Formats: sequence, C-alpha cells, structure tokens
Amino acid sequence: MNVFIVGIGLIGGSMARDIRRIHPDVRIMGIDNNAAHLEEAMSLKLVDEIAEYSDLARADIVIVGVPVDAVVAEIPKILDQINDDTVVIDAGSTKALICQTISDHPRRRNFLACHPISGTEFSGPTAAIDGLFEGKTNIICEVEKTAFKLQEKALELFREMGMRIRYMNPEAHDKHIAYVSHLSHISSFMLGKTVIEKEKNERDIFDMAGSGFESTVRLAKSSPDMWTPIFEQNKVNVIETLEEYIQNLEAFKKKLLTDDYEGIYNEMNNTNKIKEILKGIPLNKQ
Amino acid sequence: MNVFIVGIGLIGGSMARDIRRIHPDVRIMGIDNNAAHLEEAMSLKLVDEIAEYSDLARADIVIVGVPVDAVVAEIPKILDQINDDTVVIDAGSTKALICQTISDHPRRRNFLACHPISGTEFSGPTAAIDGLFEGKTNIICEVEKTAFKLQEKALELFREMGMRIRYMNPEAHDKHIAYVSHLSHISSFMLGKTVIEKEKNERDIFDMAGSGFESTVRLAKSSPDMWTPIFEQNKVNVIETLEEYIQNLEAFKKKLLTDDYEGIYNEMNNTNKIKEILKGIPLNKQ
Repeated sequence: MNVFIVGIGLIGGSMARDIRRIHPDVRIMGIDNNAAHLEEAMSLKLVDEIAEYSDLARADIVIVGVPVDAVVAEIPKILDQINDDTVVIDAGSTKALICQTISDHPRRRNFLACHPISGTEFSGPTAAIDGLFEGKTNIICEVEKTAFKLQEKALELFREMGMRIRYMNPEAHDKHIAYVSHLSHISSFMLGKTVIEKEKNERDIFDMAGSGFESTVRLAKSSPDMWTPIFEQNKVNVIETLEEYIQNLEAFKKKLLTDDYEGIYNEMNNTNKIKEILKGIPLNKQ
Repeated sequence: MNVFIVGIGLIGGSMARDIRRIHPDVRIMGIDNNAAHLEEAMSLKLVDEIAEYSDLARADIVIVGVPVDAVVAEIPKILDQINDDTVVIDAGSTKALICQTISDHPRRRNFLACHPISGTEFSGPTAAIDGLFEGKTNIICEVEKTAFKLQEKALELFREMGMRIRYMNPEAHDKHIAYVSHLSHISSFMLGKTVIEKEKNERDIFDMAGSGFESTVRLAKSSPDMWTPIFEQNKVNVIETLEEYIQNLEAFKKKLLTDDYEGIYNEMNNTNKIKEILKGIPLNKQ
C-alpha cells in the first residue's frame, strides 16, 4: 500500500505513525512545502520518501493535513494527479468551503471530507504521536458523494485507528464546530492576551498562576498559521458564537455590578452540568 | 501535635493527608458544619476526631479551608477560642477583606493570611489528594503582623509540604489573582453556558467536542459555593478584568467583521508567548 501524506505535521505525522503500526509493509511518501519538516519527518521515520505531486499517480491513499486555506487550494490539484482508485482524505476543521470548491471536480468521487476531532496545541512533525485518533470522533461530510469502494477503503483505515464515525452535512459541521472548538480557541487566546497585557511588566505575577489558568489558556499556544484560515472560512458562525459569548460575559458583569450574587450562583450551578457532558468526551492519553 | 482542620474539603483534606504523612504522630481534629463531610473525613482517615470550636484551646495549628465568606465570618470566632501559641492559617482565594476584618482582633498575631495556589475543579473530602501542594506557590499576606514564632511554625509546615513562598500585600494579591485565576473561572463558566444554551436540544453535538473544549471549560465544573463569595469579595478587580477581556473579544470580533486576518494572525502570534510563561507554572501531577 502506498500512502501519501501532504503536510507532514501533527495530524499527518500521527496518521503516518498509526498506519505504519497497523500496516508494517506500507510505503509512506511525504509531500510538504516546508523542507525542514520533510527532513524531520524522514529522520523520525514518519515517511519513507520525499515526494512531489507528480508522484501521486502511485497513491492508494492521500492524507491531506495542511491548514484549511491550503486544503482548499491544494485538493483540486491533488485530485488532478491521482488515479481512479485513489482516495483523498482531508482533516480540516472547516468543511463547507472545501466541499463547495471541489463539488464540480471530475474526481469529486475520489475525495472524502473528514474532520478527526483530535490534536494537541502543538504542531509540526515532532508533535506527531502514536494513537492520537484512538476513541476520537471523525466527522465525515457528504459521504454519499464519495465512491462506495473508496469510502470503504478510508473507513477501514479509520476503524483500524480506533475512530468513531459521525456523518454530518458541511454546513451543520461548521456551525456546531464553531461552538465546541473555534470559540474555545478565541476565548483562550483572548484570555492569554488580557493577562499578558496587564502583567507584562510584572513577570513574577505568573508565579500566582495555577493549573486552572494553565488549562484555560492552553489553546493559546496553538498555531496562528492553522487557526487564521479556520476563522476566515468559518467567519459567520464564529462571529455568532462570539456575540453570544460576549453577551453572556456582559450579563455576568451586570450581575456583579448589581450585587446579584444569587444570580451568579445560579449561573454557575446551572453550568456545572458540563460535568456530565464532559464525561462523554474522549481525551488524549496523558 | 494537635492540628484542627476547619472545613474538611479539597484543601483542608489534602493538608490533612500531607500532615499525617510528614508527622505520623499528629492528632487531627475535624470541624465542619456538613455532617456528611465529617463522616467521609473520618472514614477516609483524614481526621482522627470530630471536634467543635470549644475544643480549639488544644490546637497547635488551625487550618481553615472554607469558602471566603465563611473565612471572614469564622476566623474571628476561631481566634477567640485558641491559646496564645496557636497559629491559624487560612487558604482563601481573596485576602483583603479577611485581613481588614481581623486587623483589630486581639489575637491578630496568631493569624497567618495564606493562599496556596493549588486545587482542582473538585470539592469535598473525597477530592482531597496527596501531595497537592508540592511545588506550588503559597502567597502569604501581611506576614509582619503574625508573631514571629508562629510564622516559623507555619513556614516549617509549608516547607515540609514542598510549597514555594511569596510575600505580597492583600490588595496586590487580590488585584493580580483576579487576572490569573478569577477571570479564568468566569471565561470558562460563560463558555460552558454559551455552548450548553446553544446545543441544549442537540446533545449529540458534544460528540464533536474534543480535548481542547474540555480544557477550556474544565473550571466550569467548579463549586458555586466556593466561587460566588470570591467574586463578591473581589468584585472591583474582577469587573476590571472582565471589561478588559470583553474589550479584547470585541476587538477580535471587529477584526473578523472587517476581514483583518493579518491582525488576527498577529494577535494569536503575540499571544503564543504564553508558552514560555506557562513553562514556569507548577501543575498537578496527573
């Protein structure tokens, strides 16, 4: 089996690790416009060869793990190069624009639009880890537009990696993921910014920070290269989530200003039900 | 040595565990207005005896681990009962009001105002864990107002628990802790609320949530009994942090609305320096 990984970072590299473990006889080819990443991927044995788009005709599976602006730009070019039996899988955090972009491509049936809900705040080939996808949800959009035999090939691989599959249309995906993922990143980045701005001349103050602060700002370590195009592509939904979040913060502030501590207690008590909800979320192994 | 723990929850119970490990011959007495917690604390062997305020004359050390409204109400009563060589230590997340409240108490010199930056999102005696304070910062306020021999007794205990000590005045403590702790809790509670409200009829949506969401809403599991009085006592500082946070969120939203993706990239890139800052924060052992 020949697997091509386009973008050999956290997601592409972790897929490479899993595939090599599951299929020891696989041949993995890496394509990346970052030469340093390719070298790292070779020395980490994530890939066996460095390749180019002109080699894609040899691919059984192509996994595209690049920022979502590059997904939109590159998938049509990749589809142009593959053979009829190749399945091309992406892993982007937005789905509507990519599905629109390739809707009329002659090889639309060779593409499966995916979003594995997995990752860490780190990036690049050195961030790739074993078993990243075990127990995680993989959202697949417009599954009916992919050739049945190619769906099967991809689903078999996902099953071997231990992923749970959910089917959704691209618009619903982008709307809901704005709430459960994109908004978290903004809240975390802006929390980090607020504290850094305030405490910039008082580095000692971070001695006062504990694991609670660490947890809420963890996502502020994330890559701007990855996240800027996500916010751009999902602008409308993200703005909606931000407006509701800001409204809730304003309402909380108003309760403080008017000494409505019963209201504040109730807000927190009602939100405590997140405990039950979180129990269902598969987390990264520590 | 006789140690009294007033409020045998996460903090009081974890202190009891450490003290018993360090001083196997200690006698630990528990005082709590929650009878179920006292029973749990007995069966978990956190405490050797259930006690009352009238027993406090026997205490060498009194550790007060109750919500900050109860700290303010109870410390004067506790000071009324102790003997001259007893040191009373609190662990509240606010320091100004308690220091003001007992400033004229005849036994002010028996009190040491402390805030160990440690904890989890859980509460009650069953949440108590070993080594919670190892490597954590303990902020001590108005140290000069505590009798020197009693400071020494408390500091020896903190040293044995592995805590790092920082001295600060109560007003500075409350101002800075609003940024690095209290604001994180509000951002997390309101993030949880925003998502629960939106997705209340679509529980499946939480299948889309990953470890990033879990991390940013973790603090929304925290106890309203503990946090309502913290926000009340630190109202002025907390409102200031909330206003700055909301301003930053509004500015981010404006950048999205005006398609200023270079600005969004720069915001995230600048905030990435949180990586370096977080390296210095001692975290709970997993």
